[in-house]
This record gives sequence, structure tokens and C-alpha cells, in this order.
Amino acid sequence: MAAPVDFAGYGAPVNQIRQVGIERLDGDSRRPDRDHLVVEAPLQLRARGTPVATIMRTPGHDLELARGLLHAESVTAGAISQIDDDAVEVDVAAAAFAGRGLLSSAACGVCGRVAIADLELRAKEIAADTTIAAGVLAGLPDALRTAQSLFRDTGGLHAAGLFTTAGALVAAREDVGRHNALDKLIGWALGARIAAAEHVLVMSGRVGYELVQKAVMFGSPILAAVSAPSSLAIDLAERFGIAVAGFVRPPRMNLYSHAWRVIGG
Amino acid sequence: MAAPVDFAGYGAPVNQIRQVGIERLDGDSRRPDRDHLVVEAPLQLRARGTPVATIMRTPGHDLELARGLLHAESVTAGAISQIDDDAVEVDVAAAAFAGRGLLSSAACGVCGRVAIADLELRAKEIAADTTIAAGVLAGLPDALRTAQSLFRDTGGLHAAGLFTTAGALVAAREDVGRHNALDKLIGWALGARIAAAEHVLVMSGRVGYELVQKAVMFGSPILAAVSAPSSLAIDLAERFGIAVAGFVRPPRMNLYSHAWRVIGG
Repeated sequence: MAAPVDFAGYGAPVNQIRQVGIERLDGDSRRPDRDHLVVEAPLQLRARGTPVATIMRTPGHDLELARGLLHAESVTAGAISQIDDDAVEVDVAAAAFAGRGLLSSAACGVCGRVAIADLELRAKEIAADTTIAAGVLAGLPDALRTAQSLFRDTGGLHAAGLFTTAGALVAAREDVGRHNALDKLIGWALGARIAAAEHVLVMSGRVGYELVQKAVMFGSPILAAVSAPSSLAIDLAERFGIAVAGFVRPPRMNLYSHAWRVIGG
Repeated sequence: MAAPVDFAGYGAPVNQIRQVGIERLDGDSRRPDRDHLVVEAPLQLRARGTPVATIMRTPGHDLELARGLLHAESVTAGAISQIDDDAVEVDVAAAAFAGRGLLSSAACGVCGRVAIADLELRAKEIAADTTIAAGVLAGLPDALRTAQSLFRDTGGLHAAGLFTTAGALVAAREDVGRHNALDKLIGWALGARIAAAEHVLVMSGRVGYELVQKAVMFGSPILAAVSAPSSLAIDLAERFGIAVAGFVRPPRMNLYSHAWRVIGG
């Protein structure tokens, strides 16, 4: 019997990828260019009209996402239907979600709410005019990796590092979860009364909405990462004054927002 | 003024890394060996005695983790104190967490509960004696990557793939979140009435507890990943009969649980 084959979604609908303007640095060259970001956007899950969860996801296959999530949670639901681009309706009582993890999980931090509007109530645009030399910024991921060396053999740890704008490592934290690594680092920095506006955050992996939100709440003007940012991460960074450098792999890096904070190139 | 420097935790306490027995495949060679896993374990967050969240994290710096998380959530708390290895107490009313995302997030799926005990109430050990040839398994991550080619330029997408034990790709899904990618894939498979026990799941990244839990609920006997598993992922896979292959990068791979499901090597 031939297995059913399903490649739906591989036609890359427009709303899964967004083209954005960036500044591309490569050695001594610095020029405006375009790049593609994966779209990250909230999907609201409603149980007979009552919102029960918000999932940050890449649009597409939303009904399958809901079905898979409900199955993992052992929630037996009736029909699942798409209300609009940002909401899915499930035919089950909202009470079915009580105690199901959906209502009591924390590892994803703050994704349980619509993103920017909420953050505007709680945080301000970063006012400091902090900058960093491109050559200094380029070296930070490697410096973070060196600090990680003791854990290198597990291959399973994310790292978050705090650096001065002169490139000195101030603190680093690691965790199986990226968000945890950043929470640990910021939790330490709050206790140590570090001036967030004078420092740079560096992440070992990708940069999604949640990590930028944590950077906003902390008051970080500059966030550098080894890998790619999402669309919502850049929207948030642009709105709150944070320079995001992605794919920081010397001699290259991409500047996605507030590129003025990175000097030279 | 010299910045304070904090490398605490870089002495790699015993409970952040666990040494486990594996089978290591390298070309035609297959031999028992040992490997190091990063520890993933639940931390309960209590507000004046009331559990308000469970965070899957790597032990260590738990107070900083709690402090950073509360800050990101705009929860103003008094003292934070460690109750035991698995719990942190925060001096704030539990009501402060209502509507704070901590109680209503979904992207992390099911991590909001203590892991294995709960799953034992909902799922059974996988009974099928499904196996796969090591040579076939070794090629699956590359096959998944090929299916990802349209999205390759964003660099920000995780992928989950479903394959037959003969190595044929049945379906693939991508998302900015690993858990979403797997939920979408399983959601599709449930709708298509795919026999989970006869197929293999392949993930583009690391394998944590939640991904294995989703595989258990789906009924997958074999899970392969390009990167590292966590300690809790392997505990769960061992308990429920799932073979986990990690660092699947031909000609090498590591088998962390139920290695009998992978034939030859």
C-alpha cells in the first residue's frame, strides 16, 4: 500500500515569509540589502468562543496545529474550524482545558497574550543612545561560546551572555531552554543592579518574539544572535528601539533593526 | 568602574549533566559507549504556597530564573526563596499571576505539569516491535532538509517529518517553533489516519521532554534528531518504548534508548 504523501504548505505562501530591508556587513563592506524572515504570529485557540490559549506560530496548517496540540493534551474535541487568520475555534467546553498544561505552563514565558499592544502598557522605548563598534559586536558570539566550553560536550545547551559595549563578558547563563537562559541572565543582572542600557545581550540561537520581549523589559539596547530572528521579533525590536544583529558569524552579520547602534563595518 | 563578573555555575555541578550509556554508530562500527546529556527537570514556582507554574529547565540558578521570569511578566514580588531542588517560593499573592501568560500560554505545550507520572495516566508503552535499518535511519535528516529547501533562506524554521521505516517521506511540517512543527505534523497524521506505530518521526533540532511526550501520545516507536536529547526526554523514551537516535549525522549517530529498534550499523 502506498503511503499518502502530503507536502501541502511547501509552496511557501506569502504570509509564512516576509521580505525585509537590512544592512548587511561582510568584512569592511556594509550595504543595504533585503533578507527573508520567517513569520511568527499569534494564533488564538477558542473553546466555544472562550479564548483558552494563544500560540506563537508560523501561519499555515493552523487546524492541524490545533488538532495535534489537543491530542498531546488529551483534550477530546469535536470540530476544529478556522475563524480567521489568527483564530481557531474548537468545539469543546473551555473547562476541558483546565489543568491541561495549556493554562499553566511557563516555559514559553509571555506568549500567552497578544504581543506588542500588551508590552506597550508595560514597557518604554529604550531611550539610551548606546552604540557598539561592528568589530566588537562580531566577536561576542565566539566569546560566549568559549565561556560555554565546560558544557560543550552535551551539545544541548542554549546560552545567553551579557557583555559591555567594549566587548567584555560580564555574565553568562545556560539552559536547555533559550528563554530560561535569558531569564537566568536577566534575573542575575537585576540582582546585581547592572545598567541594562550600557550592555549588550548575546544569544546562542535564534531570536523570537519572546526573547526580544524579555530584552525590552530588561531595557537592552542591543541584541546579537548567532542565528535568525523572526518577523515579530524584529517588529518588536523596531518599536522599542533595540538593534538586532542576526547571523553574527564573522566576518558577516545582518542588522535587522536600529542599525545606527552598530558603528562601522 | 570595573563591571562585576559572574561565572557562577560554570563549575558544571553534577545535576546539570548526566552521563548515560548509549550505542554509538560510526559507519560500520557499533559499540556501547557513554555520553553526556544536559539535565532537563521541572521547577515548580509557588506563590505563597500555591503552585502557579512549572518550568522545564536545567537545574541551577533557579532563583535568578524565577526573578527574570517574574520581571518579564511584570509581576512585582517580594522575597524569592528556594524550597528544595525542584521548587521556588515567591512572596506574592497567586492572583498576581492571573492573566500573566504564565497561566495561559500554550507554545510550550504540556510542560506545565510534572512529567512522567501524568503521562502514565494517559498513554501506554508502545507495544509494536517496529524496527528500522540503521542505514535508512541515517539518511532521514538529510531527506527532511531537502524537503525544507523552499524555506531554507529564512534560516529560522524548525521541521518535523514523518517517514516510513523504508525511508520514504510521508509528510513534513515547518514552524518557527519546534513543538508547533511536530503538532502540525501529528495533527495532519491523525486526520489522515496514519498508523503511527509503523512510522518514524524526524526532528530538525534538539529533543526535549515535550517532543518525546508528543511522540508518546501519537504512538511513535522511533524518533530521530539532528541534535542532542535532554535527560528527561530519554527517561520518557525509555519508559514508553521509544528509540531515540540523536546527533544523526552520517556516518554517525547515537542511540539513547531502545536501541534494539535500530538494526545493523
